[in-house]
Amino acid sequence: MAKKNAKISNAVIKRLPRYRRYLIELRKKGIEKISSKEFSELIGYTASQIRQDLNNFGGFGQQGYGYSVEGLYREISAILGLDKEYKMVIVGAGNLGQAIAKYTKFHKQGFKICAAFDINPKLVGNQLEGIQIYDQEELVEYVEEEEIDIGIICVNQESAQEVADKLCFAGVRGIWNFAITDIEVPSHVALEIVQLSDSLHALAYHMNAIPKNVHNAHK
Amino acid sequence: MAKKNAKISNAVIKRLPRYRRYLIELRKKGIEKISSKEFSELIGYTASQIRQDLNNFGGFGQQGYGYSVEGLYREISAILGLDKEYKMVIVGAGNLGQAIAKYTKFHKQGFKICAAFDINPKLVGNQLEGIQIYDQEELVEYVEEEEIDIGIICVNQESAQEVADKLCFAGVRGIWNFAITDIEVPSHVALEIVQLSDSLHALAYHMNAIPKNVHNAHK
Repeated sequence: MAKKNAKISNAVIKRLPRYRRYLIELRKKGIEKISSKEFSELIGYTASQIRQDLNNFGGFGQQGYGYSVEGLYREISAILGLDKEYKMVIVGAGNLGQAIAKYTKFHKQGFKICAAFDINPKLVGNQLEGIQIYDQEELVEYVEEEEIDIGIICVNQESAQEVADKLCFAGVRGIWNFAITDIEVPSHVALEIVQLSDSLHALAYHMNAIPKNVHNAHK
Repeated sequence: MAKKNAKISNAVIKRLPRYRRYLIELRKKGIEKISSKEFSELIGYTASQIRQDLNNFGGFGQQGYGYSVEGLYREISAILGLDKEYKMVIVGAGNLGQAIAKYTKFHKQGFKICAAFDINPKLVGNQLEGIQIYDQEELVEYVEEEEIDIGIICVNQESAQEVADKLCFAGVRGIWNFAITDIEVPSHVALEIVQLSDSLHALAYHMNAIPKNVHNAHK
């Protein structure tokens, strides 16, 4: 049984979805059990790292048997809270908001996008892949009434904090922030950030950090 | 002068784009200098952390004066390689690829999307915000001839590795991977990953890790 309330490091939590993805692949191939050594060769972490990571949640593995793929998949899913359903809204129905609305994979994973909101009168009243776009004025009432779990922020950086405040006031438990700015949320609200610009800039750094002669050697 | 070839930890590199964003805000406000203490209050890292981070690249700050906003902005931009221009292609012109093509902010930052590629005959030949969609068969030739720097992978998980191989073969220096799978690239190619599903799953974990009574106390 998972020790759900134990304090787990962020680094471990970041690795869990990746373990889970590999377990899904193993399930597809009909593989029923895997040793930490085999898992290590597949995923690229050391066997010791894998045992240490999974140990955080209680012992899944059995000595001399390895991990049950199905069991480990279910445990990690439960730890991540993926055995539940989540109701989400998108705030900001511009290009990024539209792309997320169209990304049907979230829905399959139990994350349902219930509505989108925007301040642009040209967008309000339209549908986005079957998702209704409402006036942003209606955000708080909608989130309260529909008991929305997660607010996805896709507005510009100037209004991101105000939108976050409204979402938190209305009672969301998590915020997924795509705005190119840092926002603050109360401690009872979870916050996860996708910073596309920062990611691209880090890529540029790494490209320039690779010595030029390595490139030339391959040309 | 920045020590460009020094080995900098990934954690520091991840923080640099964030420093830069705050420096842009300070510039907009006409602020010319900032102490590490003031910077700390703004950005939320400790003053000691800030001095340590920026020390990696040589001393920007002057004792008793603080950091020059403009100077630090330019140095960090140069360290990140943002004083250059980058040519990019998008592979996979589905919803995600389209959203990235529409995201004009990258262009303003010197990252130019030159072309998109897809295997879907319904998409090939169309334009995406002025970006031509070509047949994926033409990818290698285009990347070679146009000397593309970065390949953005927006294809499904089954074909992501094959696309990465082609991009690397054709000579890109960096890959920005949005596919929901891990890919491998040669050591002379930089790789940056945006794992939207992993990020959403981490959010779900954090939401469930916050004790329930905290939520109730706020209702």
